[in-house]
Amino acid sequence: MEVIVIFLGAENEGNIGSLARVMKNFGLYRLILVSPKVKIGVEAFKSAMHAQDVLKSAKVLESFDKAIEDVDFVIGTTARLGWNYNVLRTPIFPDQLSILREREGRIAIVFGRESSGLTNEELNKCDVVLTIPANPEYPTLNITHAAAIIFYELFKILRKSMTERYRCATKVEKDKILETFGKLLEEIEYPSEKLQIAFRVFRNIVGRAFISGREAHTLIGVLRRTVTLIKRLKQRKQNR
Amino acid sequence: MEVIVIFLGAENEGNIGSLARVMKNFGLYRLILVSPKVKIGVEAFKSAMHAQDVLKSAKVLESFDKAIEDVDFVIGTTARLGWNYNVLRTPIFPDQLSILREREGRIAIVFGRESSGLTNEELNKCDVVLTIPANPEYPTLNITHAAAIIFYELFKILRKSMTERYRCATKVEKDKILETFGKLLEEIEYPSEKLQIAFRVFRNIVGRAFISGREAHTLIGVLRRTVTLIKRLKQRKQNR
Repeated sequence: MEVIVIFLGAENEGNIGSLARVMKNFGLYRLILVSPKVKIGVEAFKSAMHAQDVLKSAKVLESFDKAIEDVDFVIGTTARLGWNYNVLRTPIFPDQLSILREREGRIAIVFGRESSGLTNEELNKCDVVLTIPANPEYPTLNITHAAAIIFYELFKILRKSMTERYRCATKVEKDKILETFGKLLEEIEYPSEKLQIAFRVFRNIVGRAFISGREAHTLIGVLRRTVTLIKRLKQRKQNR
Repeated sequence: MEVIVIFLGAENEGNIGSLARVMKNFGLYRLILVSPKVKIGVEAFKSAMHAQDVLKSAKVLESFDKAIEDVDFVIGTTARLGWNYNVLRTPIFPDQLSILREREGRIAIVFGRESSGLTNEELNKCDVVLTIPANPEYPTLNITHAAAIIFYELFKILRKSMTERYRCATKVEKDKILETFGKLLEEIEYPSEKLQIAFRVFRNIVGRAFISGREAHTLIGVLRRTVTLIKRLKQRKQNR
């Protein structure tokens, strides 16, 4: 799947650069500016930071129709949900982009002017309208903040493996942690009526902590050493 | 649950304002600036847009320790994952914040300087370190973009969670867990060269598991009982 970002009627140079930056942060490189009100100048390049390449290769077009002519799926964005919301435009939320997971083709994410967003006419040209759930007291996000959230969700969906950078402890490793903890409870003669709770608490903690393989080994090491020491101390006691 | 946002060593006024805006967008109102390099001036208020209230009520403090002194759960943020990744800093991802769903207490989300992020010393004061999965070619997000994504995930989580809640372990309770674990490592004469790692691993696990008050007490109980037993066994041995 190919993702294009379209920014209609940009009013602020800093935002154009900032959009380029956050595009690159999430692996997106194709930017189209439709009828920007400002030039791509020093201010834009300054806020693009290390995404100069995205900005340099950005296309500037005169018409939205032209920008989406070879796009398979057009996603419009809007913050104006409350008072502009009707049955014809039931919005989706960013995490619903997961429907794109197994799609091929070219999709476009469309952002509107900083001051007034996309017009109804422009939204009508989109396949779907996306909104970001936010505080009703102030739901209007800066355009690049909205972009960051949407690109982040897309990135998670399209490259799920990226979030698996460190190896999670395997089931076998986690079982070993629990088994060793069980032995410890036994050795310390933990009150039987509280045994199940203690075991369960430890299991919950191990479960929720997203333990890595390395961490599992350290933890097993500490627990084993404790159990072995207690056994040895007990044995010496008996031997005397 | 109460959420505080802490920004350490802010270098850019526009970012302070922009952070205030995106906080309000997601229903967060309490901002603490620790040793900002710039004043909160015209530029900040301009980029805060309709979040002037957040900016006006922002506290400015001299020390990070002071900022987190009554915080139960401190979430540090970092982009420096790839080359700085070690057992001391196994990160969580924003959607793993869902484990906060049923917690009560005060949490802080901590952002570092625009140029260099949080120092290792600062990160060590956090219960957990959070990173945003991004393009390895350019993983460093603008600080307010990172904030937008994190606040958005939190907003999704907290909105869904108004019903069942349980109390997070307090800082005091978590410190007690770690203290008792430290005593255990001492009693089992854990190899000194591995001591720090074992302690840190345990701290990471406790941090990431978002332990409840009840769980903390169970865990402290098990650890204490173990330490006491070992001490008693050792003493008996000596007495003979």
